[in-house]
Amino acid sequence: MPQHDDEAEIRALVSTWMEATRKGDVDTVLGLMTDDVVFLVAGHAPMTRRDFAAAARAQSSGAAPSMDGTSEIEELVVAGDWAFMRTRLHVVARPPDGSNPIEREGYTLTILRKDAGRWKLARDANLLSPVRR
Amino acid sequence: MPQHDDEAEIRALVSTWMEATRKGDVDTVLGLMTDDVVFLVAGHAPMTRRDFAAAARAQSSGAAPSMDGTSEIEELVVAGDWAFMRTRLHVVARPPDGSNPIEREGYTLTILRKDAGRWKLARDANLLSPVRR
Repeated sequence: MPQHDDEAEIRALVSTWMEATRKGDVDTVLGLMTDDVVFLVAGHAPMTRRDFAAAARAQSSGAAPSMDGTSEIEELVVAGDWAFMRTRLHVVARPPDGSNPIEREGYTLTILRKDAGRWKLARDANLLSPVRR
Repeated sequence: MPQHDDEAEIRALVSTWMEATRKGDVDTVLGLMTDDVVFLVAGHAPMTRRDFAAAARAQSSGAAPSMDGTSEIEELVVAGDWAFMRTRLHVVARPPDGSNPIEREGYTLTILRKDAGRWKLARDANLLSPVRR
């Protein structure tokens, strides 16, 4: 498959991820990551797929803030069955009690892997910090 | 070159980086990164090679804390001329005025590239946070 098709598939993955997150469609998001995915965030132990699923289901049940956001891919490199991208992300979390939304922005550095012919998110470093207004 | 040689070379790069950092040998550290290197840290704009050099030279001049630390590679994957690694890092910064050292620990997610036959650090996401004692 030519590299530009890989890139298009990865860009579609990011769009689908953001849209499914907005809708609270946890199963779709889980289908976009590898079984051995690792999420890295400062100040916390690395999160597994199971950790992500538990947090996302709490969110879609209305017990946690609803999430919205925008994602811009600043760099994307494909190397065989692996790829990495640097993304600028802006996320708004709206608490269920109607209090002020919480905004975070910053970068992610993400490793993707082609898994049975489909690109999936495999490792993710989240460097977002609170937006002060 | 077989993959295990690539891995050995990347592990040697990490050891050399940590040792040169301890010694304040800025030129050696700069020789271990690509010209287009990008360092990502939460709450700051991405740092270039020039930004890194300025910060490291301030440090080795004695105007900033001296740095020491340990680095453990938890995962290392080579894909052609690209590689990524996840590292657990513990860093101690000792202020020049003799006040209490500042400790930070956490993960890095790092992309490496083979550049004219030599592995170099190309992208780095730093997820360290302060150690509370």
